[in-house]
Amino acid sequence: MTTLAEAPPVSIPCPIRDYLKRLHDQFADCHEGEVATYIPELAKANPDWFGISLVTTSGEVYEVGDTRQSFTIQSISKPFTYGVALEDNGRDAVLEKIGVEPTGDAFNSISLDPVTGQPANPMINAGAIAATGLVAGKTSQEKIHRILDAFSRYVGRPMKVDEEVFRSESLTGHRNRAITYMLRNFDILGDEALESLDAYFRQCSILVDCRDLGMMAATVANGGVNPVTRTRAVVSDYIPNILGVMSSCGMYDYAGEWVYKVGMPAKSGVAGGIVAVLPGKLGVAVFSPRLDPRGNSVRGIKVCQELSRHFDLHMFNVLNVQAPVIRRKLHGSQIQSNCRRSSREELVLRGLGKKTAIYYLQGELDFAAIEVVLREIRNGIGESDFFIIDCKQVVKADEPACWMLSELVKRLVDQKVEVFLVETENLTLLRRILKSVAGAEASARTLAFDSVDWALEACEDLLLESLPDEEGLGADGGSQKGHDSLARIDETLAMLDQSELFNGLNDSDLSILNPMLQERTYEKGSVIVDVGDPADGIYVVIEGRASALIGVADTGKDRRLATFTPGMAFGELAVLDRAPRSALVAADEKTRCWIISPEDFDSLGDNHPKLKIKLLENLAMMFAARLRKANREIAALEV
Amino acid sequence: MTTLAEAPPVSIPCPIRDYLKRLHDQFADCHEGEVATYIPELAKANPDWFGISLVTTSGEVYEVGDTRQSFTIQSISKPFTYGVALEDNGRDAVLEKIGVEPTGDAFNSISLDPVTGQPANPMINAGAIAATGLVAGKTSQEKIHRILDAFSRYVGRPMKVDEEVFRSESLTGHRNRAITYMLRNFDILGDEALESLDAYFRQCSILVDCRDLGMMAATVANGGVNPVTRTRAVVSDYIPNILGVMSSCGMYDYAGEWVYKVGMPAKSGVAGGIVAVLPGKLGVAVFSPRLDPRGNSVRGIKVCQELSRHFDLHMFNVLNVQAPVIRRKLHGSQIQSNCRRSSREELVLRGLGKKTAIYYLQGELDFAAIEVVLREIRNGIGESDFFIIDCKQVVKADEPACWMLSELVKRLVDQKVEVFLVETENLTLLRRILKSVAGAEASARTLAFDSVDWALEACEDLLLESLPDEEGLGADGGSQKGHDSLARIDETLAMLDQSELFNGLNDSDLSILNPMLQERTYEKGSVIVDVGDPADGIYVVIEGRASALIGVADTGKDRRLATFTPGMAFGELAVLDRAPRSALVAADEKTRCWIISPEDFDSLGDNHPKLKIKLLENLAMMFAARLRKANREIAALEV
Repeated sequence: MTTLAEAPPVSIPCPIRDYLKRLHDQFADCHEGEVATYIPELAKANPDWFGISLVTTSGEVYEVGDTRQSFTIQSISKPFTYGVALEDNGRDAVLEKIGVEPTGDAFNSISLDPVTGQPANPMINAGAIAATGLVAGKTSQEKIHRILDAFSRYVGRPMKVDEEVFRSESLTGHRNRAITYMLRNFDILGDEALESLDAYFRQCSILVDCRDLGMMAATVANGGVNPVTRTRAVVSDYIPNILGVMSSCGMYDYAGEWVYKVGMPAKSGVAGGIVAVLPGKLGVAVFSPRLDPRGNSVRGIKVCQELSRHFDLHMFNVLNVQAPVIRRKLHGSQIQSNCRRSSREELVLRGLGKKTAIYYLQGELDFAAIEVVLREIRNGIGESDFFIIDCKQVVKADEPACWMLSELVKRLVDQKVEVFLVETENLTLLRRILKSVAGAEASARTLAFDSVDWALEACEDLLLESLPDEEGLGADGGSQKGHDSLARIDETLAMLDQSELFNGLNDSDLSILNPMLQERTYEKGSVIVDVGDPADGIYVVIEGRASALIGVADTGKDRRLATFTPGMAFGELAVLDRAPRSALVAADEKTRCWIISPEDFDSLGDNHPKLKIKLLENLAMMFAARLRKANREIAALEV
Repeated sequence: MTTLAEAPPVSIPCPIRDYLKRLHDQFADCHEGEVATYIPELAKANPDWFGISLVTTSGEVYEVGDTRQSFTIQSISKPFTYGVALEDNGRDAVLEKIGVEPTGDAFNSISLDPVTGQPANPMINAGAIAATGLVAGKTSQEKIHRILDAFSRYVGRPMKVDEEVFRSESLTGHRNRAITYMLRNFDILGDEALESLDAYFRQCSILVDCRDLGMMAATVANGGVNPVTRTRAVVSDYIPNILGVMSSCGMYDYAGEWVYKVGMPAKSGVAGGIVAVLPGKLGVAVFSPRLDPRGNSVRGIKVCQELSRHFDLHMFNVLNVQAPVIRRKLHGSQIQSNCRRSSREELVLRGLGKKTAIYYLQGELDFAAIEVVLREIRNGIGESDFFIIDCKQVVKADEPACWMLSELVKRLVDQKVEVFLVETENLTLLRRILKSVAGAEASARTLAFDSVDWALEACEDLLLESLPDEEGLGADGGSQKGHDSLARIDETLAMLDQSELFNGLNDSDLSILNPMLQERTYEKGSVIVDVGDPADGIYVVIEGRASALIGVADTGKDRRLATFTPGMAFGELAVLDRAPRSALVAADEKTRCWIISPEDFDSLGDNHPKLKIKLLENLAMMFAARLRKANREIAALEV
């Protein structure tokens, strides 16, 4: 055990980096395969270069080996340029020109439809050249700028073309020139065909390193947003399409075995790079120039297979037990609003606790998640009449989920069931769809409260209002009746629903207290006590209402600690321990209070000890009740 | 607003079922395609039959139309039988006989490797017959029984073969017989070749309905466990392989477009069924006998496309912001153990709060999740010396995650950093791997506590012990010194670290109290007060320690409310409000207490009011301190 006195600065090695190092050592001895030689520049690569990088969707980079060695991206550019083509033309227009079927053929097969001339898919050269043709711009320069811009967003730094490799590609690219003329023949490419081919050659000659490729893969895994720069590289709608063609056609005629053994959509290039994407989780890149006969990096495939096996990274490795969308469900018997209630009201509310159900959601709301929510809430109807749905920890809600949740709200409102969605300020799509589905009025009511606390108070008020009158528990107690002319303590007390501090006091006690009570009135919004103020007295609300608030760190928001209604006391803690005020109390509406000064309270001990004992017993009971409520709440929240 | 008095029994229509109904209506008018006629039995199908079912991984079934109409499973059997073959032979042996590459060819293409005779994949007939050949058993009967058993587990009810369809399949299956002899020729099938073919014909003739198929798909989505019966249908390791071949080869030469437009691994059959799987989420099945030229149900494809589009069910529709694996991180300044500490100790502990970090994990731990945990904890070293990792809401930890977490623990222990994994009782794999990685001793210490509360107490004790002696805060206070001979209250009090109830009392006060203090000793484990007991006094611990416990509903477990050490009081709440005891208090070790009876406490008010005022003020301060702690805890837990 480290004692505090001798504690040294400790750090521990990273198990993930250690594993990548072992993986690198393991395959560094593998010298199978040949460096590509079809253009002289590629043949210059050091065959022993070997880098591995793994980048998570939170932007953490794990790398080992030659991850900063530049090389040309080659065919790995294809899915990313396809994404640009999708952005520039939309899915339908692109599908008209380029298919999405795997061919089972090699990487440089021509594979055009004999009738339409449509290339089978965008991962073979023919489809890739067609995709570059679809990138906005008439000239090679315009197209390549657009492509470089996009790739730079994926990588997070400016990309450029290796001019020497480009010239070499262009000089020796006879087959691709033939393909281009075939595409021109079928009108897949228009008059700018040769410009497109030129841009394609440049695109293949973009310089990257292994770390860059890992970041590009992680950006795809992250739904199109670079996880480090937070810049969007591609519209998220096209991510399934990019991953789809990588999955079915990315590894040429090795695609089936790749899906089987590695299970991450991937793309390789003849310079020796491979990228692989585990959607939502991470990107992997390997760089090692020796290729197998199919044109895939030998070590790259081995590393991806081993990595996938070791860390269970297969996309179909089903996580069938995700964190539940409903992270907590509470009833009104377990948690009450911070509006202080009289003990009678509290008893009634706890008895009716099941009438109010609070669901705390979390994570991303998609179809599967919202299906659970719909089912749970529909099952809860009957037991509960009031539903509060807390979205504070909902990080995203996709459009179908927003529609379904809105449909649910509409149906609840139609059935006169109260439902409040709280903490939705970041879910703008949900708010918009709710308005269009449920209408402006129902939507405004549903979204009227911004926290569980305030929505709970509204539900409690509705519950208390709905009780038969003979129970005498109307929420409109003394506060709204106005008795400004009343001066005598007993008359005022008689008007209050309760008086926790003065409970059990007799007439003689009251006449002792009467001269000590200083009455003050506060306008709506004014501060009654402020944080840091000295303890100037115990306050008893006799009309109106006031709330204690503390600022929440980093949010600029206030959190309500309690709301006090007529008969309730506050400020007693600071009088007991003489500490400065720890929270601000402000008047929610015009509020009248009695104040007993600390000196008067103290002097009671000397002159009227029995009265002081009664008051202290009442204080202890008040604390005890609050403590019991707090402990109930902790037990409910801890689950 | 529904008032309680008039509340009618309310139910609301289900938006998901409503949508499926609309989808069914929308495509019921589509009469494209032709019913299969290659055997007379299939031609008898009513071309208008049309059912849709959607089954979630929690077992909820949504269905509309002819979902209870029986038909033969046909090619939809292929991926499921492939799973049986994998279970009976292992992955490598199966891969030797059957490839996994898509062919781009039609469903009945022969597609054998010209040299090895290996069928390209198990979704074409040749590969499927080979897979049936690999199912354990020498005879057709043995094989089909095994297959029926497996399918019955997927469906959740006993399956059987339609004998008439089987005879018809067998009579007309010349092409499949030719394929079988080719497979025999290449030794892909052995001497039992014709038995395998017979079993294959039977397998294709198994009767299912649309609801059954939805359940089969949901079972695959659920990692191989039927979500209703909770029976395992197939070893989870093979799920990625089953989904892999469905994804790359399941829809014949439509596979690429299917992945692109629907994005759920799928399989169709010539009787008009289609199943589709969204891993981890749900299964979909459609039944409509009219087929397109590729042999896929026309309405089936349309429904799947529309359903995927409407509900965003594409497997690559990246959910990049899942519920975080660390659902909460607290420091010792925000939450303390329920072992009551003296106010001095509490002050010290709160000052050292950051030394202890508590991570609450949730969901399924996989590589991506554990990467976050590793990173956070490694970053926390230096700031914190004590780590508590709460696994209560971890529903599963896969093997790589267990290894990585164990590696982390080992490295922490090696560096003499304290780490406690709590609430791990259901994570047997984690416990086993931890023991093998970190050793028996370190693993036992790491797993020594079963809740955050107890681990926190251990960390607090270690922190207090590690303080320099001059601070005089050793955790071994009066309790371990033994002063049985001391009878005088002031001498005893002088030995105590604190005495919250007697704080500020002078000699005269103590001499008044002395005769009221009844001393009792409790053996370890004995009950001091029990739930429901009448309030027989305020207890002050003067030696030993005692804990207040309440039973947690449905668990048979106790939850600790508080532990009291010498100088602390309990039982005061019930004396104030005269309510029966709400918790049990038991002696953790041999414990001595003073007890003040309610009568004596009351009488003080008459005879010694100033003393009573002091005691009540102390009680109010005790409550106030606990209330402040509880409010801090609520604020921390609410996040």
